[in-house]
Amino acid sequence: MPGSQTLRQLKRSDFIYFLSYHTRWSDNDQYSHVNNSIYYHLFDSVVNTFLIECCGQNPQSSPLIGLVISSWCQFFAPLSFPDVLDLGLRVTKLGNSSVTYEIGVFREKEGHPSAVGGYTHVFVESQSRKSASMRKETREGLAKLVVEKAKL
Amino acid sequence: MPGSQTLRQLKRSDFIYFLSYHTRWSDNDQYSHVNNSIYYHLFDSVVNTFLIECCGQNPQSSPLIGLVISSWCQFFAPLSFPDVLDLGLRVTKLGNSSVTYEIGVFREKEGHPSAVGGYTHVFVESQSRKSASMRKETREGLAKLVVEKAKL
Amino acid sequence: MPGSQTLRQLKRSDFIYFLSYHTRWSDNDQYSHVNNSIYYHLFDSVVNTFLIECCGQNPQSSPLIGLVISSWCQFFAPLSFPDVLDLGLRVTKLGNSSVTYEIGVFREKEGHPSAVGGYTHVFVESQSRKSASMRKETREGLAKLVVEKAKL
Amino acid sequence: MPGSQTLRQLKRSDFIYFLSYHTRWSDNDQYSHVNNSIYYHLFDSVVNTFLIECCGQNPQSSPLIGLVISSWCQFFAPLSFPDVLDLGLRVTKLGNSSVTYEIGVFREKEGHPSAVGGYTHVFVESQSRKSASMRKETREGLAKLVVEKAKL
Repeated sequence: MPGSQTLRQLKRSDFIYFLSYHTRWSDNDQYSHVNNSIYYHLFDSVVNTFLIECCGQNPQSSPLIGLVISSWCQFFAPLSFPDVLDLGLRVTKLGNSSVTYEIGVFREKEGHPSAVGGYTHVFVESQSRKSASMRKETREGLAKLVVEKAKL
Repeated sequence: MPGSQTLRQLKRSDFIYFLSYHTRWSDNDQYSHVNNSIYYHLFDSVVNTFLIECCGQNPQSSPLIGLVISSWCQFFAPLSFPDVLDLGLRVTKLGNSSVTYEIGVFREKEGHPSAVGGYTHVFVESQSRKSASMRKETREGLAKLVVEKAKL
Repeated sequence: MPGSQTLRQLKRSDFIYFLSYHTRWSDNDQYSHVNNSIYYHLFDSVVNTFLIECCGQNPQSSPLIGLVISSWCQFFAPLSFPDVLDLGLRVTKLGNSSVTYEIGVFREKEGHPSAVGGYTHVFVESQSRKSASMRKETREGLAKLVVEKAKL
Repeated sequence: MPGSQTLRQLKRSDFIYFLSYHTRWSDNDQYSHVNNSIYYHLFDSVVNTFLIECCGQNPQSSPLIGLVISSWCQFFAPLSFPDVLDLGLRVTKLGNSSVTYEIGVFREKEGHPSAVGGYTHVFVESQSRKSASMRKETREGLAKLVVEKAKL
């Protein structure tokens, strides 16, 4: 988990693949801001959309699926319903059977993230749930999101 | 609750105010389609966005808030992650202290709804939770969504 | 959808199978009460637990699965986190390929429901999603929840 | 974030305050296990129940509220609907205006956690959202959950 000072200073250009989400009424908890758990729902959404649309993944039929083994998030500024959020995705580590994503959560029109988090996927066989080397198509798709060390 | 035959045949032009939502990974349940409960989260989102943006409602500070007293939904075709959904809103009954909404859930580019549902809001004082006549600004905003009886 | 006057007067003894749920922090929306959508998440939980534990249903491997085609709920009194809720389940209509459930949501120690709702499941083949007669084991399990007409 | 080897080996007796939760149908994602985001919903539930029941916190009226500034989770074994989960809570760092919690997620009857995670709350004034020293009652309640350094 990198230092929060660095994470706060990230820009939109530090991320590669973007999707926008309208927040929902129930994303706000009783403190009238987007609940911390909701960020992880959004992380899952942008990661899996990328896997489906750019890596040939089909959650229902692909022989391998990605399981989350650890996740984290740092929160810098509150978000709320009905904000529109832009989620930027990048890969900070690409292994043989695992990949570590980092996601920046940007409020519409803002240049720095309101939160940054991420998680590590281990690819496993969908039936046995044993880890396995990711397929060529998956790896090539994810490789496009790898950022240079210097940028981190 | 109107007959489902009629509801299935509704068109986009039968609704007045529209918002689009990306489905999220966790909207799908283990049957790999959007879970029935998620539709109600989306109903809340489009209704409350309209109240905030077009009726001057502020959930945190307005003296009156809308509470749901009954809700329903009919499901015609499955939806899934990562679909984009267009939610159309209209008002089928506008009373003194209550309003009944109807929402059509359209898959992107489709002309007929995958689901239609709705609910009734009763406006209450935010502290006492006693019902009260809705404010002029609220009523005038909602009046713009009222559809003619013939259309129903 | 039965009259709300009748539904309000239901007692715990009008339902047959019960499960208890702790509400969760995020069940409360910014009006500090359990959001209307959450009730449907709980309906799904009690219905599917019954199907799994008392009807031999296995969501991952059973040849038939139950899909919701319509749902409804009436809300009589607010609930909140951290309440404990007792959900009572009964069957009001048992067909060849479909079943209609009714669920009473009781706050711990209260005799009348805070909300009553329900939905209709149509059983379909898990792959083709075509409707099919439910299996003997499913039907026999559900039959134990059928309440006499008089009670309704 | 402590080493995962250590976390896996934690026992129920390493945690002090426990609450049990039935998983819900929609906790399972399409991979038929409890989605990673759901763990954070449960963390919020056990932490806030403790704050309400043992620290005199009232989310609607207390002058200070706890906001999450960072969170993390490590996942060791899958969980599923309809499991019953026992969540154990402890405090690993208690500051003047902030507190760091650690939560063990135990499947019913299992001695080691299926997941361990946590987060840091900063107490802020509910209106201005500026950080503030926590109240005596809050601090005394949380102090009962502090575990000795050796145990960590």
